[in-house]
Amino acid sequence: MISESAILNCFRHLVENELNDIVLVGSGDDAAVIKSQNKDLVHSLDISKINTHFPKDSMPEDIAYRSIAVALSDLAAMGAYPAFISIGLTSNSTDLDWYKKFTIGIENILNEYDIKLVGGDVTNGELSICVNVFGYAYEKNILRSNAKIGDLIYITGPLGEGRKGLIDWENKEKSSYVQNFFNPKIPFDKSEYISKYASSCIDISDGLIKDLGSICMQSGVGAEIDYENIPVTNDIHDLSYGDDYKLCYTCSPDQKDNELISEDYCIGKITSKTEILIRKDNLVIDFKKNGWDSFA
Amino acid sequence: MISESAILNCFRHLVENELNDIVLVGSGDDAAVIKSQNKDLVHSLDISKINTHFPKDSMPEDIAYRSIAVALSDLAAMGAYPAFISIGLTSNSTDLDWYKKFTIGIENILNEYDIKLVGGDVTNGELSICVNVFGYAYEKNILRSNAKIGDLIYITGPLGEGRKGLIDWENKEKSSYVQNFFNPKIPFDKSEYISKYASSCIDISDGLIKDLGSICMQSGVGAEIDYENIPVTNDIHDLSYGDDYKLCYTCSPDQKDNELISEDYCIGKITSKTEILIRKDNLVIDFKKNGWDSFA
Repeated sequence: MISESAILNCFRHLVENELNDIVLVGSGDDAAVIKSQNKDLVHSLDISKINTHFPKDSMPEDIAYRSIAVALSDLAAMGAYPAFISIGLTSNSTDLDWYKKFTIGIENILNEYDIKLVGGDVTNGELSICVNVFGYAYEKNILRSNAKIGDLIYITGPLGEGRKGLIDWENKEKSSYVQNFFNPKIPFDKSEYISKYASSCIDISDGLIKDLGSICMQSGVGAEIDYENIPVTNDIHDLSYGDDYKLCYTCSPDQKDNELISEDYCIGKITSKTEILIRKDNLVIDFKKNGWDSFA
Repeated sequence: MISESAILNCFRHLVENELNDIVLVGSGDDAAVIKSQNKDLVHSLDISKINTHFPKDSMPEDIAYRSIAVALSDLAAMGAYPAFISIGLTSNSTDLDWYKKFTIGIENILNEYDIKLVGGDVTNGELSICVNVFGYAYEKNILRSNAKIGDLIYITGPLGEGRKGLIDWENKEKSSYVQNFFNPKIPFDKSEYISKYASSCIDISDGLIKDLGSICMQSGVGAEIDYENIPVTNDIHDLSYGDDYKLCYTCSPDQKDNELISEDYCIGKITSKTEILIRKDNLVIDFKKNGWDSFA
């Protein structure tokens, strides 16, 4: 066994320990102290677990990066930019080198999004990372529950890239999809204007159907989407696969010609029904009635 | 297997979902939104794991309560009162009743300290609870690094009660110590005046010697303590056992007659050396030189 303090020493240089705009007390005390920003705090957490959320022979740098990225995605979905994170790491590795590599992954994503690590805890057990993310709204928080009948539905990028990445990786193919699977990019640039113009938003982590379904359920509306307008990477199953970390948002048709929004993919519209209909090959398929398998 | 949503449904009523002083957006969205308090935020997290931090046949109510209490202890040690928490739960239980009982434990401690649950995540795996705690300073944050030579050292209660509780529980004895082991009380009442008068503070979670050692190391000082002045429950090993969740703080001798402080136990003083000396039976034992075993 290696000691907890040996592990913590790997991370210590990453944890803020000097006065700055965000962190008043960082590394080494009982708790971190975060400077009041006079803005509402947006907070979410995500647990990433070996075998469930990433393959068991993933590289430690990638495990760290991906665990943090997927947690940050919830902030983007709220129309919020990230400011700081804390990490609860459970690992049974006895190889100090593993922790050093894991730390590099943390450092890379901290630098990429200019965020601070304010604290953490380490315990012994099967690999699992609980990432706590904190941020502030760009303009206002975008909820899931505010989609209006007649709103257009947009996604910020193609679906299925995460799935393709995992398939390529399993086939030992090197591709940009593999890179994207382990180091997904979170569209904070898009989140900024979505925060201004959208009526509702969610990140596509569980698959478009389930995630758009959450918007519909929480807004008390339905949706009609055109399969042909959805950029997919593999096939129709991409609509239910997830792991893409694109955003799905709804927006008043008044904004259709908005330069920023017109760069995204308009895939359908919000309806007064309480179901998702998918138009494909001139057929209308009622997702709720027929179930997903009717697409296969 | 039971579904994640069935599990989440157990907790949903606990997560704030209406406007109040703290939570603007609670249950059901991508993230929680916490109202700006114009006060610096104090944040810590603690992972409690089965077999390591609680026995495997602990009751789910107790697992929830204890995991949250030990995390809150870090706020008390910073001179901060608790405001809200979030929980990352990993569990492989397939018994919905287990989650309902776990929820009762959460609810009990939320009510006891008047704090809000603002969010969480659930994943499948060996039982582990990552508890994130958030609060605000009563008066000012009390760091570990500010103990001064000549300061008196206080503890807020007897040591060894946690250890006695676990021993009693293993022997199937019913005692208040068992109750206290599973439902430790966090001394926020004391934290309030400590926040005003103390120079440094830590919670005694890892044992007095290690925790006072952290104050000494981070303040660049040493300590001399009188074993006879320390209220112990079992024996001298209580000084290194931990699990007590009392506070250890240092205070200028000017405050010796302060009514609040004089209720605590003065166990020694801060010295200019960089070691902890323990006086016992007219012997002076240098902890660093002799190691802990010299006490046995």
